[in-house]
Amino acid sequence: MARLEAQRTTTGWAARDSSAILSPYTYTLRNTGPEDVYIKVLCCGVCHTDIHQAKNHLGMSIYPMVPGHEIVGEVLEVGSDVTKLKAGDVVGVGLVVGCCRNCNPCKTDNEQYCNKKTWTYSGIDSDGKPTQGGFAGAMVVDQKFVVKIPDGMDPEQAAPLLCSAVSAYSPLRHFGLKVSGLRGGILGLGGVGHMGVKIAKAMGHHVTVISSSDKKRQEAMVDIGADEYLVSSDATKMQDAADSLDYIIDTVPVFHPLEPYLALLKLDGKLILMGAIETPLQFVSPLLMLGRKTITGSFIGSMKEMEEMLEFCKEKGVTSIIEVVKMDYINKAFERLEKNDVRYRFVVDVAGSNLDQ
Amino acid sequence: MARLEAQRTTTGWAARDSSAILSPYTYTLRNTGPEDVYIKVLCCGVCHTDIHQAKNHLGMSIYPMVPGHEIVGEVLEVGSDVTKLKAGDVVGVGLVVGCCRNCNPCKTDNEQYCNKKTWTYSGIDSDGKPTQGGFAGAMVVDQKFVVKIPDGMDPEQAAPLLCSAVSAYSPLRHFGLKVSGLRGGILGLGGVGHMGVKIAKAMGHHVTVISSSDKKRQEAMVDIGADEYLVSSDATKMQDAADSLDYIIDTVPVFHPLEPYLALLKLDGKLILMGAIETPLQFVSPLLMLGRKTITGSFIGSMKEMEEMLEFCKEKGVTSIIEVVKMDYINKAFERLEKNDVRYRFVVDVAGSNLDQ
Repeated sequence: MARLEAQRTTTGWAARDSSAILSPYTYTLRNTGPEDVYIKVLCCGVCHTDIHQAKNHLGMSIYPMVPGHEIVGEVLEVGSDVTKLKAGDVVGVGLVVGCCRNCNPCKTDNEQYCNKKTWTYSGIDSDGKPTQGGFAGAMVVDQKFVVKIPDGMDPEQAAPLLCSAVSAYSPLRHFGLKVSGLRGGILGLGGVGHMGVKIAKAMGHHVTVISSSDKKRQEAMVDIGADEYLVSSDATKMQDAADSLDYIIDTVPVFHPLEPYLALLKLDGKLILMGAIETPLQFVSPLLMLGRKTITGSFIGSMKEMEEMLEFCKEKGVTSIIEVVKMDYINKAFERLEKNDVRYRFVVDVAGSNLDQ
Repeated sequence: MARLEAQRTTTGWAARDSSAILSPYTYTLRNTGPEDVYIKVLCCGVCHTDIHQAKNHLGMSIYPMVPGHEIVGEVLEVGSDVTKLKAGDVVGVGLVVGCCRNCNPCKTDNEQYCNKKTWTYSGIDSDGKPTQGGFAGAMVVDQKFVVKIPDGMDPEQAAPLLCSAVSAYSPLRHFGLKVSGLRGGILGLGGVGHMGVKIAKAMGHHVTVISSSDKKRQEAMVDIGADEYLVSSDATKMQDAADSLDYIIDTVPVFHPLEPYLALLKLDGKLILMGAIETPLQFVSPLLMLGRKTITGSFIGSMKEMEEMLEFCKEKGVTSIIEVVKMDYINKAFERLEKNDVRYRFVVDVAGSNLDQ
């Protein structure tokens, strides 16, 4: 059994206020409880949500805040009741680190939809302190929210899978779309969008990237491997593509009209929203009714789906396209991410940044 | 084999223009082709859609127009290739009398979603003439769109099932909700709403009627048999009912906010729209995403579902609540229906109105 240490400290990079400038910050980790896993962070992806939270766009931020929720680390120590993990394992942690365990979502392995879930950072931990994320030397996380990274998978490659890939994988699986031969659309080519194309291709789908301009055609078709590229302002091509898609994964994070995309869906087609948009979106009901079409949304994935998705990516050879940076580049990375100036995910080499030395 | 007659005439009650005043109108029926069924109309339900069409609210009306699409009749003659029906059978016809038979919806028994379907009236028939509906002495209909009414089911009882009941039955079945123990909501207590309560109860659901006022509590609970009655303006009760429903059948035919109803749905809950509303409806995406909730719509049902639904209603003893009137009451019936002054469906006793004498 692992030794349970007294409280330890770690150093992360934290935002102090909504200016969202990150700088080093040292804080205490909770003791490794019986169900806990003490993890040395190896690397951590940078997601748009990190910027939203650091800037307090949702109005719920707790400062100082160490962001980061696409975390890959090495297990240093496990609590007495942890059986599925051991020191030395390479593991992943995503956007959620706690849930109530009593509600319907929790009881049906949909804990990401628990109304009392604990966010990986800017949440309140079981010890009453704010949670802190993966832009830090170490973390202590309940084993339920720690997933084993499959042997042979590169940690930096694995990091973006823990949020962007599972966000695409989960709805495709849940809505019965993990079957070959379907025709899918991906709207928006950011972190989730580019993984969406790769995951859908790996499921055997014919994948169309839909974009407002022709700019990303080359990268969508060649770099990422989409089958088609459709410019939404091309009325003729949009008309030709009407009634042709089984689903669209819509990753656009700002207001946009839904009608043009609903029209692309076949009978029973699904528009799956991934962007949290506070401006109301609109549609007219006959467009849904006369094709039994669905507008729905999905939020990351369950821990069970996370495990499944990692195995799926390993088996199918799905990799993410990343740019690896050091921790002291994070403010520049935020700046570039806000301008969509990254192909397609920054991953911070946390271990190589020697935060805890 | 039945004798194929020369063209016959019949008399219906037709609107001549968008004033929607119906009066007697005599017209020719097509010959009974090999796949056709010549039907003497016994009775016909009155649906809100009849008023919309008669008033040209959708801008596609063809006059003179004989409305009526909840038709029960007696077979007088069948074409040479009709095997499943014979003279004397009591049969039903709904909102659609033709489809292309080649598209994906047609090939998957979802012919109601065929883009080239022929409407029962105000459509263009195979002979190039306008189709005419069930407020008439007789009709000639392709056997594919004729359903046998189960033995022992009263024609006047059966009529409203052919549109309002199948409209509720079809989405419950399609979306996997035809299982006992679910909690459903019905929004709006018109023709579809009242059948929705009865069908859902017969499926073993706990049914809550949701209404803007307390006015219909007694009839919802006592006359129709709902389990609960929720007033949407009661913020406390709405809050208490949050996250409690597996689905809501929303029959409201005019603009209304969706958020209060989306909030009532559980994880994976479905808001099923039945009202064709041209004013855009609105929602914010996090409300869908954080509960993987669905907004969808449904349109009548397939012929296969129609058959199934009739057997289901017979087996479970589901009946509609109707007010039977004669044909010459139709203008008054339209007037009262527009004011929702009917509990819950007018059915015209067409045979008893002696139109063809």
